[in-house]
Amino acid sequence: MKRKVTLKQIAKELDVSISTVSKALRNSPEIGEDTKQKVQAFAKFYNYKPNNIALSLKNKKTKTIGIIIPEIVHHFFATVISGIEQVANENGYNVIVCLSNESFDKEVINMEILANGSTDGFIMSLSKETQQKKDFHHIQEVINQGMPVVMFDRITNDVLCDKVIIDDQLAAYEAVDFLVAKGFKNIALVTTVDYVSVGRLRTDGYINALNDHDIPVHEDMIVKIEDIEGCASKIEALLKDKRPDAIFAVNELFAVTSIKLAAKMGIKIPEELSVIGFTDGIISQFSSPSITTVSQNGIYMGGRAAKMLIERLEMEEEEENEQYRTELIETHLVERESTSTM
Amino acid sequence: MKRKVTLKQIAKELDVSISTVSKALRNSPEIGEDTKQKVQAFAKFYNYKPNNIALSLKNKKTKTIGIIIPEIVHHFFATVISGIEQVANENGYNVIVCLSNESFDKEVINMEILANGSTDGFIMSLSKETQQKKDFHHIQEVINQGMPVVMFDRITNDVLCDKVIIDDQLAAYEAVDFLVAKGFKNIALVTTVDYVSVGRLRTDGYINALNDHDIPVHEDMIVKIEDIEGCASKIEALLKDKRPDAIFAVNELFAVTSIKLAAKMGIKIPEELSVIGFTDGIISQFSSPSITTVSQNGIYMGGRAAKMLIERLEMEEEEENEQYRTELIETHLVERESTSTM
Repeated sequence: MKRKVTLKQIAKELDVSISTVSKALRNSPEIGEDTKQKVQAFAKFYNYKPNNIALSLKNKKTKTIGIIIPEIVHHFFATVISGIEQVANENGYNVIVCLSNESFDKEVINMEILANGSTDGFIMSLSKETQQKKDFHHIQEVINQGMPVVMFDRITNDVLCDKVIIDDQLAAYEAVDFLVAKGFKNIALVTTVDYVSVGRLRTDGYINALNDHDIPVHEDMIVKIEDIEGCASKIEALLKDKRPDAIFAVNELFAVTSIKLAAKMGIKIPEELSVIGFTDGIISQFSSPSITTVSQNGIYMGGRAAKMLIERLEMEEEEENEQYRTELIETHLVERESTSTM
Repeated sequence: MKRKVTLKQIAKELDVSISTVSKALRNSPEIGEDTKQKVQAFAKFYNYKPNNIALSLKNKKTKTIGIIIPEIVHHFFATVISGIEQVANENGYNVIVCLSNESFDKEVINMEILANGSTDGFIMSLSKETQQKKDFHHIQEVINQGMPVVMFDRITNDVLCDKVIIDDQLAAYEAVDFLVAKGFKNIALVTTVDYVSVGRLRTDGYINALNDHDIPVHEDMIVKIEDIEGCASKIEALLKDKRPDAIFAVNELFAVTSIKLAAKMGIKIPEELSVIGFTDGIISQFSSPSITTVSQNGIYMGGRAAKMLIERLEMEEEEENEQYRTELIETHLVERESTSTM
């Protein structure tokens, strides 16, 4: 019996990207005729079934929700899953999780697998690479097939669907405002590169807060981290050359790394340096000093996302054109040992 | 169109357990005739499809591996998933994760969902409740249907399948031996209740190490934790009443909680109390003092489990009777700031 061929294998065989194969199979005008014919012929020969099989299954409910997240080593995504699980189970739904590992290709493959009759709908947070590429055809595809999608945290405005987010800009603004109120002026930012939507929004919040307090924004007080491996040397240089009195870090790994590096350099926390993180995970709670942080409430966020998806799954047909909603989750600052007054 | 009925709904409707429904549908002799007939009639009426649908799909490879784990808030399971992902992807397999949340019922439901044509085989770690109930029929079931299962970490000897474990007893022995070599005699153990297999084995290792060094084992130096919520008061009582000079904790949450509570009571670490944990996760690395720990190498463990499963999935039929293997993963001690010499 012929084994089922996957998108990935077709892409490899024809030496094109997974995205190209996926688009060619959907007859996208973005793909040249030649490539389209080649891909379609290949797929036909190997009896490839694209996930529009989901169409025919539209009325066969699986009572299962598919979650696609970038990774789970960050505690935040683990808490969101817990929140989704809880509300899903209360409503008689099960949950399946797939990881994109920050890869666009894996995100596409995961959607293909789960849309293939395994789930009724999706809750997802975009991979870094997807945000960078701005290619969302795989998500649009499942929505067109009638499978609802709820995005959370890392979202895009290019896809119309329900969304659950925190007001990242406001949350960052409030964190920096808190530092200014404590008397700090020389405040550094440790953030992600700009294509990560939440990183960019938190950066904007930092800049707005400084502007509103008439504190000049210095580009060299803003450190943008591409990946966690390169993070230490950049933060070390910041601490050494700029001697900030406070740091706002856009996630807890950046925060705890700043604290560890400062301690190694003999900078006392919080006496000589105050640090605020983002995401109230186990690192913030258990590190010493424990870390003052913006709490995102991942469990609540997951629960709300599950509620939105289930409501949409259980809508009667006449309601189905109801407008998509974007729900803002409130954050709050948890004050701990890593901050003091100037 | 009738919605698909689930095991859970049948159980609720008939006011019996999910396990009973599952067994009744398989005509198990453990279930009374009356119940069997009732369950089977109900399932038939609602057109319930048990997962022996997987049988007919035996030759239709999905190239997907199903993972069922108790929870993901513990960093250990997250690292195992990363390890599985890596090896699976290298071999052209995808990965789907379901959480049992330490519940037997959820474990059964997850297996049912994933065995229903979504995956070729399973990598799993048992839920606490499954270990307590010693009911493994759902696992035996999928194996009988020709879907291979690899168990890791929390395993049972009651099911014949491939397994990847660390030698928990030896690892615990070595940790306690390390403390004795440092001059400590008054060594306490913070462990789980006995039905958690890894907790019991680590407890045995602790006792053996003390015995081999002719140090008496005092029952009141052994604290057995049922759930994390009740953990603080028990450890506090231990620190106050027994004043150990060293603690061996069977996971990192117990270790960091011991350290935090000791610090609160004014006990200096490592000067007045040495602490060793188990699992080299982010807590051990980032807490201050950083924690000396038995490293389980979850990534390697996950990789080995994936390798074993894929090998079995890709066996030719004539090899299929090859004996099951249990692979022992080596652990090693990572020495950090939480231990000193007596």
